[in-house]
Amino acid sequence: MMKPLFNRMALIGVGLIGSSIARAAREQGIVRSIVATARSGATRARIAELGLADQVVDTNAAAVDGADLVILCIPVGRCGEVAAEIAPRLAPGAIVTDVGSVKEAVVRDVAPHLPDTVHFVPGHPVAGTENSGPDAGFSELFIDRWTILTPPEGTDPGAVDRLAAFWSAIGANVETMSPEHHDLVLAVTSHLPHLIAYTIVGTAADLAQVTRSEVLKFSAGGFRDFTRIAASDPTMWRDIFLGNRDAVLEMLGTFGEDLAKMTRAIRRGDGDTLFELFTRTRAIRRGIVQIGQDSDTPDFGRPQKRLPPLPRPYMADGE
Amino acid sequence: MMKPLFNRMALIGVGLIGSSIARAAREQGIVRSIVATARSGATRARIAELGLADQVVDTNAAAVDGADLVILCIPVGRCGEVAAEIAPRLAPGAIVTDVGSVKEAVVRDVAPHLPDTVHFVPGHPVAGTENSGPDAGFSELFIDRWTILTPPEGTDPGAVDRLAAFWSAIGANVETMSPEHHDLVLAVTSHLPHLIAYTIVGTAADLAQVTRSEVLKFSAGGFRDFTRIAASDPTMWRDIFLGNRDAVLEMLGTFGEDLAKMTRAIRRGDGDTLFELFTRTRAIRRGIVQIGQDSDTPDFGRPQKRLPPLPRPYMADGE
Repeated sequence: MMKPLFNRMALIGVGLIGSSIARAAREQGIVRSIVATARSGATRARIAELGLADQVVDTNAAAVDGADLVILCIPVGRCGEVAAEIAPRLAPGAIVTDVGSVKEAVVRDVAPHLPDTVHFVPGHPVAGTENSGPDAGFSELFIDRWTILTPPEGTDPGAVDRLAAFWSAIGANVETMSPEHHDLVLAVTSHLPHLIAYTIVGTAADLAQVTRSEVLKFSAGGFRDFTRIAASDPTMWRDIFLGNRDAVLEMLGTFGEDLAKMTRAIRRGDGDTLFELFTRTRAIRRGIVQIGQDSDTPDFGRPQKRLPPLPRPYMADGE
Repeated sequence: MMKPLFNRMALIGVGLIGSSIARAAREQGIVRSIVATARSGATRARIAELGLADQVVDTNAAAVDGADLVILCIPVGRCGEVAAEIAPRLAPGAIVTDVGSVKEAVVRDVAPHLPDTVHFVPGHPVAGTENSGPDAGFSELFIDRWTILTPPEGTDPGAVDRLAAFWSAIGANVETMSPEHHDLVLAVTSHLPHLIAYTIVGTAADLAQVTRSEVLKFSAGGFRDFTRIAASDPTMWRDIFLGNRDAVLEMLGTFGEDLAKMTRAIRRGDGDTLFELFTRTRAIRRGIVQIGQDSDTPDFGRPQKRLPPLPRPYMADGE
């Protein structure tokens, strides 16, 4: 029988993503042991309670001792300092990776700290939910989702392949690209949507003319979808916008121009311009469903209640 | 045993909303018979095929003959002309209502055509999915959602109560308010979110730097949620924006100011402003879940695949 892909996986940070990796890697048997750590004592205690790791340690440096796979599952703004902490203790030949939604800033902050004896292969699983913390993870999170690897030039291809095999084994598709291109792609498929969702939820919350209670009650008209995204982890998202400033500002610029066009069409009563856009966008949705990146179940498959049995007064009288 | 609420319900237009009403009203036995019509012959044939009505007729005027409940389930831009068509054939005492997402424009277009002998009670069920047409409806669509009624001053309260009882019987909560206030509330909870979703999907589709294929593949980072909303019916939504111009422009103005604030925070690296908003918006999500307007299932409860059985190479060797 063949060996697992890695002997000892160190998880630094065990939130939604870290705990999903732990659960999936264990279920698939692709790591021999898991050591985990987290900044807060409460989280470390919860990791132990949930049995997510074979060993829970108090410091980042202790976590990487003897690990051949080290995954930083922390907000991107903290990756630099953590790299500095773990660098002296990294085992030669270890693969160091991360799961951050921004890649240029992570490469810039992390790479200078790492010794030449390890392989640095930055990564980003494009998957998640609105929930955070070690309880939020589940082993199926990465199935059919894409993980993007952004190895710097000169990275050992063998290390990239091993990390790709790891992600494949827990269900992900893997693609490699440059950190710059990653940040541009994610600016439009993830960062801009989040910023807009956060903003519109804030707009609705602050209105003078419409009460908070009305916003909540009548949210099924579309607004509630935005609130799910706007419930994502604040620290993680603050760091993403600070870390991917240029690409996000560029996308904001383009979006702003497009929104101005639509605003003008509404002001002028130009129904054709509206209709043309509204027809075109349907094709994008179809494409996403066709390639399996979303379900075609109506309304995302939200749980649907049934009507209670008929009350007597409404029964038809034998027609 | 008591009688059904209405004797003969006429549905003019049988898309997602009309066909959901037909299914729900029949299941609950609250109308004795259903007559339906639609503009296209193909749709009328499909209504008959699906058995959604007891009778399918070719004209709007024929549909309302002898009906004591008439529901316009058509884009708001067509309500005026249809009101003119049906007015001469409406039965005295009939309740005429609609399901449009805009109320001031509907009142303005419809009321002048109707005879004094009928009760005009405009309505709007705040419910839907991204799908359209007679096949898209289902009887549970209105359960726990709100239907807003906007009776003009002087409307017979008995007629409002009967229509409210109808919506309650198919699962909805009912609230009444003025058409003006309805249009302001829906501008923020529905119209602005849709416009933004349509716009950002268009922005992503037109980018030069990121390919269409990349937008689709990496859409699970948030973008795909917007594509569901942006797959809604183009005619219906064109009419909504043309019909609720002033309130939508007002909300766009406020949203634009808020987005400018966030853009500035990103440009200046002002993480505190971002963090403050991102924390505040979580409370809105919690409120919506608490009052039952959305599920707390992560990721809307999207169907989740399981990992296939372990391939041999990844099995741990007896540790």
